[in-house]
Formats: sequence, C-alpha cells, structure tokens
Amino acid sequence: LKIAILGLGLIGGSIGSAARKQTDAQVSGYDIHDSVAQQALELGVIDQRSSEIATAVRGAQAVFIATPVSAITSTAKLALAAADADCVLSDVGSTKRGVVGAIADQRFVGGHPLAGAESSGVAHARPELFQGACWYLTPTSNTSGVLYERLHRLLVSIGAQPAAIDAVAHDRLMACVSHLPHVFANLLVSQAAGALGQDGHLPATGPSFRDATRVAGANSSIWTDIYLSNRDALSEGIRDAVEQLQQVRAMLASSDAEAITSWNEEAHTNRMALLDGGTQGDTLHELRAAVPNRPGVIAEIALALGHGGVNIVDMALSPSEDNSQGVVALWVRGDRDAKRAEDWIRALSFPVSRV
Amino acid sequence: LKIAILGLGLIGGSIGSAARKQTDAQVSGYDIHDSVAQQALELGVIDQRSSEIATAVRGAQAVFIATPVSAITSTAKLALAAADADCVLSDVGSTKRGVVGAIADQRFVGGHPLAGAESSGVAHARPELFQGACWYLTPTSNTSGVLYERLHRLLVSIGAQPAAIDAVAHDRLMACVSHLPHVFANLLVSQAAGALGQDGHLPATGPSFRDATRVAGANSSIWTDIYLSNRDALSEGIRDAVEQLQQVRAMLASSDAEAITSWNEEAHTNRMALLDGGTQGDTLHELRAAVPNRPGVIAEIALALGHGGVNIVDMALSPSEDNSQGVVALWVRGDRDAKRAEDWIRALSFPVSRV
Repeated sequence: LKIAILGLGLIGGSIGSAARKQTDAQVSGYDIHDSVAQQALELGVIDQRSSEIATAVRGAQAVFIATPVSAITSTAKLALAAADADCVLSDVGSTKRGVVGAIADQRFVGGHPLAGAESSGVAHARPELFQGACWYLTPTSNTSGVLYERLHRLLVSIGAQPAAIDAVAHDRLMACVSHLPHVFANLLVSQAAGALGQDGHLPATGPSFRDATRVAGANSSIWTDIYLSNRDALSEGIRDAVEQLQQVRAMLASSDAEAITSWNEEAHTNRMALLDGGTQGDTLHELRAAVPNRPGVIAEIALALGHGGVNIVDMALSPSEDNSQGVVALWVRGDRDAKRAEDWIRALSFPVSRV
Repeated sequence: LKIAILGLGLIGGSIGSAARKQTDAQVSGYDIHDSVAQQALELGVIDQRSSEIATAVRGAQAVFIATPVSAITSTAKLALAAADADCVLSDVGSTKRGVVGAIADQRFVGGHPLAGAESSGVAHARPELFQGACWYLTPTSNTSGVLYERLHRLLVSIGAQPAAIDAVAHDRLMACVSHLPHVFANLLVSQAAGALGQDGHLPATGPSFRDATRVAGANSSIWTDIYLSNRDALSEGIRDAVEQLQQVRAMLASSDAEAITSWNEEAHTNRMALLDGGTQGDTLHELRAAVPNRPGVIAEIALALGHGGVNIVDMALSPSEDNSQGVVALWVRGDRDAKRAEDWIRALSFPVSRV
C-alpha cells in the first residue's frame, strides 16, 4: 500500500505516523514548505518526501489532503489530476460543503477527523492521535463504493471510527457543536470585559463562565478559515440563535415563569438525550448485505447508519467475480444498534442477515 | 454574638454550620417548613429553632435571609420590623437590584456568596462551603458603616472574601458571567437536538460543546426565579448578544477575513485580561484611613476598591470616643493592589497611610 499525504501539519503528520506504525504502508509526503517536509522525514512520520504534489501522489492508493481549509480544493484538484484511476482521495478539513460541492470525482470522499484541536505542527504529530476518534466521511451518490471501503478500512486500521454523514448535515452539525460555541465564547468575554471595566477582575463564579469561554479567541490562523469556510451553516446557526434569544427576551419581558420553566425543562430533556445517545452496548455484531456494485450503494448504507448514530466499527466489501454485485460486511457494536442497522439496510431494499 | 438565619437550605445551613464552628456565635434558625428547621437542629447547623421570623431575629446582631430569591424581599421586611436597631441584615440571593431597590433601611446590606451552586438542601450544608469564596455585598449610600463592617468581619470569620459592588453592576455582571451562559447552553442543546434528529447521537467533538452546555437545563426550581429576578440586566445582556451576533453574521456574509480575525483577536485579548486580572501578589498590606463616621463612608470605600477588583482581605473600623469620626483599617494583598487601594482612598479625599 502506498499512501500520500499533502500538507504535513499535526493531522497530516499523525496520519503518516499512524499509517507507518499500524499498517504496512509506504508513506510519501508533500508540504508547501520544503523545510516542513524535511522535518517530517527526519521525525519519521513519512518514508519519503516530494517537492511536487504530482510526484507525491503518483502510484498511491490513498491520498490525504491535510492542508489548511482554504487550500484544500485547489490541492485536491492538482492531486486528482495526477492520481491513478483507482486511488481514493480524502481531505481532513473541518467543513465539508464547499470542498464536496467543488469536486465531483468518484475518487474523492470528504473527511473530517475529530482530533488534534489542542496543538498544531508536525512536531506534535503522534500515531495514536486518532485512536477512538470519530472520523466523519461525506460520500455522495457519485462516490465509488470500492474506494470508500478502502478509505474506511484504512481509517479503522489507524484507530479511527469512520462515520458517514451528508456534507450539508455535517457542516450544520459542526456550526452547532463547535463553531457557534466559539462565537458565543468570543461574545461572552467581550461582554464581561465591558461589564468589569478596565481594571476589573473576573469573580470566581461558578463554572459556567469559565467553561463557556475556554475557547474564546482561539487561534485566528485556523479559526478565520473555519468561520469563513462554514459561513453558510454558521450564518443559519446564528440566525436561529438570534430567534431563540428574542424568544427568551420576550418571556422575560412578560415575566412568564411557566414559559421559562418549560423552555428550561426542554433544554434539560435535550441535554439528557444528547448524552444518552452516546451510550452503546458491548457485543460486536456482523451484518452482511448483498448489494449491486454501483457507485453510491456503500455511501447510501453508510449515510443511513451514520444518520441514525450507528457506528460502523468495521466494514468489508467483497465484490463478485464479474464485479456486478457484492456482499458488504458491517460490524456494529451493541444489540440495539445491530437491530437498527439491520432494519435500515432492509428499508433500503437490500437483503441483509446477521452472521 | 447572636445570629439568626431565615431559610435553612444549603446556603443558610452552611452559614449556621460555619458560624457555630468558626465563631462563638449562637445561631437561631427559621424555615417556612418546620420539618426543615427541625432537621437543621438535628444536624447541628443551628443552636435553636423558631417557628416565627420575629422570634428568630429578636436579640440577634446579624440576620441572614437565605430563602429562595422570590421570597427575600417579603422575608427581609418582616425581619427588619422585628430586628433590633443595631442589627445588620443581609441576604444571599443571586440578584441584587430588586431587593436593594425595595428595602431602604440602613441595617440592610444586599449579599451574594458565590458558592453552593452544585447541590441544595440543608443535608448538604457544610462549614467550609465559603472558604475562599467571593461574597458580594451591595452597600448603598444609606448603609450604616458600623453594621457593614460587622457583616464584613463576620463573613471573613467564616472564610469568605467579601467584595463590595454596586447592585446594578452586580446584576449586570451576573447576567454576563452566569445567566447568559446558561441561556446559551439551553440554546445550544436545542439547536444540537434539532441538527442531530431524533435518533442522532452527539459526536465526540472537541470540548467546546460539552463545556458550553454542561449547565443546560439547570434546576428549574432555582433558575426560573433567577432568570426572572434578573430580567432587566439579562434582557440587556441578550440585546447586546443579539447585536454582536448580527455583526458576526455581517462579517461572514461579506467574507471579511480581516474583520473576523480582528474580532477573534480582541476576544483573545479580553480572555487573557480576564484571566490575568485574577492574579495577585502575596504580601498582605495594612492601610489606615481616617473617615468621618457617617452612613455611606465605608460603603464608598468598599465600592471604590471592589470596582477596581481589589480584594479587601479584612477590615476593622475603630470609631472615635465621641463617635463623630473613626479610623478604618483595611488589609489588602499584593504590592500593586495596596498601591491602587491607597490611591483610590486618597482620591475620595480621605487621609490614608500604609502601616
């Protein structure tokens, strides 16, 4: 297996490091700064370095684009032009609608590992970065099933938990669970600074303020890109937030204790549901589904399960001799999730059985 | 010393427990539920219980009103009617504008200890609850200096750090550092529940979402009261939040990377300033100021220092023989804060010296 990594920061470096340690892959690396590629080579996170994108991807079966968000689309286009016909390409950007919309190639699958937010640079790269980490993949109806399966297995082999999600839903989710909390954090520190005055110091309040503002003023060199690349979904999130705030203000203005209580109780219910959704059983189940071998089938199944929150622990596609159909094996943890996965696959009209 | 406590929940019970353990005070207690007062007696957090407010406060030198926020004003009025002329009365409600506006009695000082948010009920009362905790006091120009000083010393003796603040500024600050983060938390879980759908589970994102939503749906029996009692300041905070959100939306709409970066950098600066404001030197300095013995003087000094974020570690007022003037001694930690305290007291036209 040959893997190419374009962009050797914390994420790119850690993919290389993990692939070298946990698979038999040969890893070639490229970075826009030759000195960074050289450092990556010296740190042993890649096997060889190229000073051209085309050279790095030639002969690779998998390519990861791990540049800053603003450079992903252009880098992906150069890589696709040079990559082999059966090479899968993916990126690691934290927003997906833009890149997935710009690239209509069945070899490309958008990706986003939820890891590595705490530091940056190849010097911090480490093979265990993705251990147990959710790694979103955003296949489309155009995505090659064979290539998607290869990418999925590769991610599992470096410890990640791939989960398929629609690119638009992904960005909306990220706006809500990450980008909007960052906006709120910035807003709260600005308001607190105003309320406290120039010499004011923060009182030792309960944990709510410190918790809510820990990410205030996060690294601009990353976050300006993130805000802009997800500006549509984030704008929608902000519009919704403004609406909700106006509703709270109206409840306060009319001193409507009942409405405030029921709004607060609903938040309690939502929080419990969000926490509870994460619990999973222990038994690993193997499901097998017979599928026609056409683009989009694997994506369809992965999306259905990803949407329902079922984690595909592992996946294997076995095409028939004539390549017209195949069997996809899926491993799912927990009785409840296995049952749901079975139901959903059946609802997609594919024969499925539990092994 | 005789202390009365009206309302024997976590805070009231802990005041009693701390006063009994750390001072020589006799503590009488009242609760609207006789069974709770009985429990408090059995737990040893009070010395005796009364089934009438008037009986509890008679002969006391200090009274703490520790009822739910909605009952504070009415309880305070009953207590003031029965209390001695030289008794200081304070409350522990988390908003202050309402109660301070409703009660114009020189014996009353609004109060708010920043402690005890994590549980409730007298069964959880403990003497160390206020150890090192900021305890806001909201004296007015009407407040008796002698009584304020007694309250301050009593709070210090149970381990708290009293800090004077204007009631309006207090409520604005609380809206920003506590109530608005709670509103945001509720808003985020509602948005996430919508984005994830019915069966959706929360991805293991970075810490921003979990941190920002930990307080979502906090105990309605406390929080509906808090939201309503601080509705003016919270409404202002929400209005400001909406304005800031609209600005962010405009920056996103125009893809203004420079504006987003500078907004984010400002948040970074604000966060650092808020964190830095909390650091203090180690040396304890004693300042002595000569002051006329009229209502409002001690409040004026305490407010000036509190506004500047200088913590008054301890305070002692020595009236002159004829009671017309006095010397107030103040202990302040750190060279920088001592210097600032000296400057501010001098700016109020009181002679001050470092001992």
